[in-house]
Order: sequence, then structure tokens, then C-alpha cells
Amino acid sequence: MTRTATNPDDPELRSQRHAALGAPANGSVRVGLDVGGTKIDAVAVAPSGEILGRLRRPTGWGEDAVVENILQAVAALAQENGIALSDIGSVGVGIPGLVDVETGTVLHAVNLGVASLALAARAEAAIGIPFRVENDVKAAALGASVLRGLTGSMAYLNLGTGVAAGIVIDGRIRRGARGTAGEVGHISVDPNGRTCGCGQRGCIETFCGGGSLAKAWCRPGALPVKDILDAADAGDAEAIALRDDLHHGAAAAVRVLVLSADVETVIIGGGLTALGARLEDGIRAALRVDAEKSPFMRSLHLDERIEMLAAGSPAAAFGAALVGASIPEKEIVFHG
Amino acid sequence: MTRTATNPDDPELRSQRHAALGAPANGSVRVGLDVGGTKIDAVAVAPSGEILGRLRRPTGWGEDAVVENILQAVAALAQENGIALSDIGSVGVGIPGLVDVETGTVLHAVNLGVASLALAARAEAAIGIPFRVENDVKAAALGASVLRGLTGSMAYLNLGTGVAAGIVIDGRIRRGARGTAGEVGHISVDPNGRTCGCGQRGCIETFCGGGSLAKAWCRPGALPVKDILDAADAGDAEAIALRDDLHHGAAAAVRVLVLSADVETVIIGGGLTALGARLEDGIRAALRVDAEKSPFMRSLHLDERIEMLAAGSPAAAFGAALVGASIPEKEIVFHG
Repeated sequence: MTRTATNPDDPELRSQRHAALGAPANGSVRVGLDVGGTKIDAVAVAPSGEILGRLRRPTGWGEDAVVENILQAVAALAQENGIALSDIGSVGVGIPGLVDVETGTVLHAVNLGVASLALAARAEAAIGIPFRVENDVKAAALGASVLRGLTGSMAYLNLGTGVAAGIVIDGRIRRGARGTAGEVGHISVDPNGRTCGCGQRGCIETFCGGGSLAKAWCRPGALPVKDILDAADAGDAEAIALRDDLHHGAAAAVRVLVLSADVETVIIGGGLTALGARLEDGIRAALRVDAEKSPFMRSLHLDERIEMLAAGSPAAAFGAALVGASIPEKEIVFHG
Repeated sequence: MTRTATNPDDPELRSQRHAALGAPANGSVRVGLDVGGTKIDAVAVAPSGEILGRLRRPTGWGEDAVVENILQAVAALAQENGIALSDIGSVGVGIPGLVDVETGTVLHAVNLGVASLALAARAEAAIGIPFRVENDVKAAALGASVLRGLTGSMAYLNLGTGVAAGIVIDGRIRRGARGTAGEVGHISVDPNGRTCGCGQRGCIETFCGGGSLAKAWCRPGALPVKDILDAADAGDAEAIALRDDLHHGAAAAVRVLVLSADVETVIIGGGLTALGARLEDGIRAALRVDAEKSPFMRSLHLDERIEMLAAGSPAAAFGAALVGASIPEKEIVFHG
């Protein structure tokens, strides 16, 4: 995988985004929504790949509220940026849970109160724009690969409440045989580790998932992982142990992704990127420490193969827009 | 991945093998060699996919001996089966170590005493038949997928002295960005585990690699892993612990392959398959036990997604023949 450019204004990168958006001659705007546990992050993307506008709205709870807030996000994004709904060629949605990409149906999005939701069908019927739905981490992987100008193979490692990765090879999301490609969060790396929400012990997610770390920390505070890092910096022994878990768990995820799928680059994203350099430097240091005794691991130069997205990166919503833009032109039939 | 047939005489499977061999109209025989630490396993394959003949020869030690024994294996195979050398369209070689498939060069095949060997160039110059070289586990993965009639995605988990996997998706060996795809043997699953030859602790290979188990067993005997299983059956506590390691280590490798690359099926091969049902049943039971506490893991039905090759399966040599058969017709220019 070669990095062609990291400056978003680079002409080469722009033309690559342009190609990825498959921009039609008439220049439709592509909307992308990253639906999170609390907020929807929405972007409107020009055929050039330029992000024309962005806004955030609450997600809401339950099937009706999620559909309603998605529709309102699209409408508000159009209005705020002077875009007619008829100029929107597609809406792509990245959403947690099990997604049937063929039908645009979402199952088991437990953090949103969604058991089963025919999201694409309901939204298309209401607003008359073609919708395409994808798992949020997989959509973010596609967005991150294009925004960072990566070709070849990459994984996007999402460190949030939970831990999962998306794998993109040659510009295509790798879904795997049954949709579990990249589910590295539930690989156990310590038989004596903490019990995971999934029922196993010592899963990678128990080391570097925000939810698991907060539970282990067990002290009040709105930003428990930040509190852990602050307390560790102040010398708290328990916090230092948990900070080590965070860094070594993420390092273990990077190793698994390279030693199984052998992606060239691992981009780290997700809510924990708000921790900034303390997270990125810590993971890089853990990769170096863990490789110290192994010439084989050192030869892989994993510390040089990770990159972290800036906190607040639009990669996930941008990736959702790319997913929507993958709708073939012939499918774009307005219902409204 | 759907299994189209497991009977090697099945017409559908035969036509699939035929297609995989890319049989030219003139019906060249394709030779495949699996070069192991002690023996070369050689097969001659008809355009129909039928194995016309098979023989084993010692590998020898060092670059010159390895080349010489490979050439002798090809000559003996031809002679024993009444095949003229000019009827052999290609020779494919599966060999341990780092292989540059473009040039047919082998690096770091430490078990063969080979530091750097321009194998394809030397063998072609000597015998006038096009050679193609591939890593042994990757070649075996291709062979196993075709012999078992698998399409879609599969991994071949080689349990021998060491542990590694090859991944085949849509009939193509997945090599990864830097050639480490499938190197699951060196993923650590226990920070307090035994030290691995690679320098890390608790690598999957320390649990289920024959070399590591023999070292941990530390008692005399030509077949240490068989001795461990026999002693475990007789109630020896140390042997029971090592038998558990073997089964749970292999189960961990299966989990990693499904939760990262998400292959549909994992075929288990390698020298340890000589242990037969005691190995296969043990791995299957470990997958069930390990999944007991996790609804997520149970939902993956991993125990139903593994298959074990019969001991002595020609999959590795057959896969090497497929690798050789991938040489485009235009490349087949005789030097002899």
C-alpha cells in the first residue's frame, strides 16, 4: 500500500476521491451519515470529493426515532448548505449492528434500541432518495482508506466502547464469509484476563475497549478512559496497569490484523482517539516493547505501519457517503 | 464457501480440478513437489486433475543438495510413470521459507540449510522445464481447497513442527501486503505462556506446534506428540496438560482465522494429522468448550467449520502442481 498524499487538497488525492465517489456527469451530491450511540454525524460530499457541509444531530432511541432523526439530518444538511433534495444522488448510512447490505436492513443494533429495522426501505419511501446501509466500522474503514489516500490493503481499528476492525483491500470492503472479518475485539489474548461482555475471558476488547476499561476502573467520571490516563500520569498504580492494558491490547489487535490478513497499514479511529497523542504514542511504544524480544516481530515494523485519525475526523460519515455512492446509476430511481 | 464434492472421483470435482489446472489443449503433465524438512513428496498430475504417480525422496541439506534432489525427484517420477520430460508442462515447488514468487527465489529455509537459492532459475536451466516456486503452506492451501472442492474462502492450518496458515479466497492464494497473511502461529494468546522460538511468549505455536510440544515434554522418543497423547490417555498429568495445550492452541488458531479473515472453512493439515481422530476430535471438542460461555462464539459454529486432511494426503504436492500450472502458456519456453 502506498500513501499517495495526506494533504486533503492534494490534486492526486482529490482525483482519487473523485474516482471513489464514481461521480456521475450531472454531479449529484452524496450524503453520508455515521449513526453512533448518541450522535449522527452527517456530511454532504460534492462529486469532487470535497465535503460541502457537516452537521451532528442526536440519534435517539428505538427504530422510529432512529429513522426520523436520520431523515431530519439529511433535510437539515441540505437546507443548511443550500442543496436541493433532488440534487442528492444517494444517502449512505454507517450504523452499528448486523447489516444486510443487500436489503439495507439492520439487526441487533443494541446501543440504538434497534432489534430489526428495514432502514433503507423506510427511509427511501419517506424521502425519495436511494439509501444504502453498511456496518459503521466497515463504512469508516472505506472512508479512512480514501481520505488517507491509501491503496492496496488496510485495516481500520475502531477503539470505542467496543473494539472491531474493518478491512479494505483494493478499494473494496472485505466482508468475509459470514460477516465476521475484522472482529478482532473478541480474540482472547489472555486466558486469565477479565471476563468480556461476549462471555470469553481476556478478549482484546477487555484490554482496550472503552466500556471494559470504564468497568474495570469503577470510579465516577464522564470520561473514564481520560481519567485513567490522567491518574496514570499522576502515578496511580491501578491506572498505570489499565493504561498498559489499553496500549498493549491495541497493539495486540494490530498484530492480529497483520499476522492474519496482513494489511499494509492499520488506521486507528473511534471515540478513544479523543485521547490524542497519549493513545497513539502509547500504542506505538507498546508495539516496540512487545517486539523487543522477537526479531520476527521487529522485522514487521508494526510501529511504523499504524496511523491515528484526528479526533473528530469525518472518515466514518465520509465512508458512508462512499457506500451510498456505490449504488449503480441504474438503481437511482426517485420514489418521491 | 460451498463444498461441491468430497469424493475425488466426483465428475463435478474433477472438472473443477481440471479448470484449476488450466489444462492446455496438448495435455501437458503438471508436476508438483512439496519440499519438506526431510522428504520431497512429488506428484504428476494429468490435465484431468488425476494424480498419475507419486513418489517420495529425501530432501538433503543445503542449496546444492536441495536442487539436485528436486531434479532427481522430477526425473524419477517421469521415469516410473512412463512420462517423457518433454510432456511435463511445468514443475511447481512448495518449499518452507520466504519465497519470491516472481523470481522463484527462496530465502531463509532454515530447516533445509538454505540461506538464499535461485531455485527456479537453477532448476529450469538444468532440466528445461518451467519452474514456479511458492511457500509450502500457501501451496498446500491451494491444493487442499481444490482437492476438497471448496470455493469461496478457506484457510489451511498447518500443524507441523511449526504452525502457520495459508488463506485461499476465490481460488487465489492471499499473500497479503508483505507475505505474512496467515502467520497465526506467532500471535500470542497467553502473556504467561511458554517462550516461543520467535522470542515472544505464549504464541499459538507454543501451544500446538510439534517442536514446542516436544521441547516442553522433554522425554526421549521419536514421536513426542504421539507419546504425549498416549501418556495423556494413560492418565499422566503433565501429558494431559500438554494435550489440552495442543487442542486449545489449534482452536485459538481457528478462531483467529475466522475473526480476522473470516474464512468459511479451516482445513487442518501438516505432520500432526498423523495423530488422526485424537487430534481432530480434540480440536473440535476444544472449540465447543471454549465457546460454551459465549453466545457470540457459539453462533459462529466453528466446530462445524473445520475439516482435517487424512494423514499422507497429497494436498501439498498437488497444490504445488497447481502453482506450476498457473504459469501462462506464453511463458512456457523450453531452455533445454
